Amino acid sequence: MHYNNTPPTELRRLIRAKVIAGQTAGMSAGYLQANVVILPASNALDFFRYCQRNPKPCPIVGVSDTGSSSFPLLAEDMDIRTDIPKYNVFRNGELEQQLLSIEELWQHDFVTFALGCSHTFEDALVEAGFDIWHLKNGATVPMFKTSIQTVPCGPFHGPMVVTMRAIPENRLAEAVEICKQFPLAHGAPVHIGEASQIGIADLASPDWGDAAPVPDGCIPVFWACGVTPQMALLNAKIPLSVTHTPGCMLVTDISDRSEIPVLGQSFPLDHYLP
Amino acid sequence: MHYNNTPPTELRRLIRAKVIAGQTAGMSAGYLQANVVILPASNALDFFRYCQRNPKPCPIVGVSDTGSSSFPLLAEDMDIRTDIPKYNVFRNGELEQQLLSIEELWQHDFVTFALGCSHTFEDALVEAGFDIWHLKNGATVPMFKTSIQTVPCGPFHGPMVVTMRAIPENRLAEAVEICKQFPLAHGAPVHIGEASQIGIADLASPDWGDAAPVPDGCIPVFWACGVTPQMALLNAKIPLSVTHTPGCMLVTDISDRSEIPVLGQSFPLDHYLP
Repeated sequence: MHYNNTPPTELRRLIRAKVIAGQTAGMSAGYLQANVVILPASNALDFFRYCQRNPKPCPIVGVSDTGSSSFPLLAEDMDIRTDIPKYNVFRNGELEQQLLSIEELWQHDFVTFALGCSHTFEDALVEAGFDIWHLKNGATVPMFKTSIQTVPCGPFHGPMVVTMRAIPENRLAEAVEICKQFPLAHGAPVHIGEASQIGIADLASPDWGDAAPVPDGCIPVFWACGVTPQMALLNAKIPLSVTHTPGCMLVTDISDRSEIPVLGQSFPLDHYLP
Repeated sequence: MHYNNTPPTELRRLIRAKVIAGQTAGMSAGYLQANVVILPASNALDFFRYCQRNPKPCPIVGVSDTGSSSFPLLAEDMDIRTDIPKYNVFRNGELEQQLLSIEELWQHDFVTFALGCSHTFEDALVEAGFDIWHLKNGATVPMFKTSIQTVPCGPFHGPMVVTMRAIPENRLAEAVEICKQFPLAHGAPVHIGEASQIGIADLASPDWGDAAPVPDGCIPVFWACGVTPQMALLNAKIPLSVTHTPGCMLVTDISDRSEIPVLGQSFPLDHYLP
């Protein structure tokens, strides 16, 4: 796969130079990729609480200093204004434009939230021999609005959005155990089985992404999805906010096996253990 | 042990009535207990970021709405002004007084942070047959300032404080694996072995708590400690803040085995799994 062994520093250089301006799935394998939400400090405390209260769809990987476009805890060289392949700019809850950099838009009161994404647990499932249909077929994972309501905070509220992957019935427990190990990548699924129980009318008609088949012997499994905070952001109708364009993620220097997503704060114990 | 089978709602009623006005170790077994920091909204975003950047000593269990003394995501009936056995009140970084309730002090701009505590993983270690000296001897766990610096944010900074428990050398890996399962209770240890490597001069002279022996065949093991955010709070010298008195914790309705610390947001999968 293109760029899958590219070190994240080099990948960000290519993104900054606009050589890469699209999806980042599979790139810089082994490193945490993140959903991004940028908003003014006046909304940051409420959004922070919204994410903390909804850790399955909104696992917090990092929060920048106010006004700072650097993010040294995720990567020494990161510049949040240029290091995402494509940005969505929202005004009053409406998508206004897509940009390849936001240097022109940057405000001294912006706070950046990096939230975990599903690439991490997908890599682990593939490594364990699971067939993930959308990965094999160059498609986008199917995403659905559900009847599960997130816990609101201030102006932020909305339904939980989920992704669906078909998992062999005899390997359900194994898939759950694998994903549980990645709480920063949505963790264990939120639902297994009957889609209608979480308000999904038709698996063949996802709200975003491409429909995926559920082969014989497989069960549809649903994970909380990073589109959830984008819905909450739209519902909040704040004057100006910026996100990554779905699929075009922030690639960090954090190993996707890190216990905590903070550069320079690891506490290896291996040399004491057998 | 006193009150160890008391349901948390009843325990909080006894605390509110000032029948219980001290340590909560072992009480309402099976439910998450929390360290508490209360400060004005103007400092809340920085303190929130400080905790997010230091998840080992400061695992975030919950953050209240601004000005609200209720905490419905941790317990339906909770009143943060009365439901902690004893409070420490700090002005400009100095302990001013200890109180059994803070109704008189409450401000419309207060935000309450509930942070995980070690009781949860200690219960799990005891259940697995580990001898925890301070629990067996009615003592307080030994706590030490270390040379490990936390990641600062705004006015909040300071050394990591750790607790020490002696673990049999042949069961180190097992103890680590057990604790890893409880990221909201400090997770895996931060150091095993030589105390001087993390700046501790003398295991027999803890900065807080009681010295504990390290028997033959045992190794000192160090976990990040909830006193760390209290140090950061003192260093920040903000005009007014309130914490629980160490050992006198907030007892929640959250099961200590919960994947996420949010009442009403659980996603049980058991009925689909073998």
